[in-house]
Amino acid sequence: MMVVMGIDPGVASTGFGVVRVTGGKMSAVDGGVIEAPGGEPAERLVRIHEALAELLTRHEPVAVALEDVYFGKNVRSAISVGQSRGVVLLAAGQRGVPCFDYTPQAVKMAVCGSGSAAKKQVQRMVGTLLGLPRPPESDHAADALAVAICHAGHTRPAQVFDAPEPEVRVG
Amino acid sequence: MMVVMGIDPGVASTGFGVVRVTGGKMSAVDGGVIEAPGGEPAERLVRIHEALAELLTRHEPVAVALEDVYFGKNVRSAISVGQSRGVVLLAAGQRGVPCFDYTPQAVKMAVCGSGSAAKKQVQRMVGTLLGLPRPPESDHAADALAVAICHAGHTRPAQVFDAPEPEVRVG
Repeated sequence: MMVVMGIDPGVASTGFGVVRVTGGKMSAVDGGVIEAPGGEPAERLVRIHEALAELLTRHEPVAVALEDVYFGKNVRSAISVGQSRGVVLLAAGQRGVPCFDYTPQAVKMAVCGSGSAAKKQVQRMVGTLLGLPRPPESDHAADALAVAICHAGHTRPAQVFDAPEPEVRVG
Repeated sequence: MMVVMGIDPGVASTGFGVVRVTGGKMSAVDGGVIEAPGGEPAERLVRIHEALAELLTRHEPVAVALEDVYFGKNVRSAISVGQSRGVVLLAAGQRGVPCFDYTPQAVKMAVCGSGSAAKKQVQRMVGTLLGLPRPPESDHAADALAVAICHAGHTRPAQVFDAPEPEVRVG
């Protein structure tokens, strides 16, 4: 059994997704969004750090996976996203949980079989691969689950991409 | 009496400088560099966070001042510097210490009287304003002291630029 936490670090909203791999089957354990909308950056980062600390303690993942946000960001937003990423890496590092970066292309490839898949397609496939009754509603949660799937597949490629369970529906 | 901590967030080296303003006199209390050269980003961020937490506890500043690093950085380095900034903001935020950003121009203006002053000039004036026997050797420590001076001056302009005490040294 292996638990991987994916994080989509953002400024106001940080997506998280926790995926468990057991005997070659992948399932979603938790997923959602840490909302830190208002206030000073420092206050937002404190809220994100607290929420992450709580999630890491609850789920005890063996790894934290993040999407590498290098591409398509300007310098101003890169600084802001970098600040959130720093707090994510710190929270994991404080517990000795290793962190892994994946490019958006690698995540799409792992989840959809194409590095140029559309966002909607990623959301649908996250739902399919994890056997969810419908795709995650939040983009951030879907992206976090996708990068967790990517890491889980990267680590155990033969097990992860077995056929999803037959009762799975695509919303 | 007012204590201000300036931080120059970097990837391998994070400068810090602690300035005290007492009765219109400004002096350096502490200054140096947090070195976090090797290892994974998460490990580096943990080291930076621990060192900052210790400095904040020791000096109890009323404010943390940072130079806004927006200008002249590319996106890749902006992410890395943003990660360090995030940990600085978090450490301050966890203690309820407010953070303030200043542009490089504002810092140079406060320290040298010109927004386009050269780096060497900033280093010299940091030494002069704080009454140091010589300018700080580390660029990072000098930049951190400069932004602390800038914040102290911004807050109490009339008091800050009186003659510095002659005997002060930065360790």
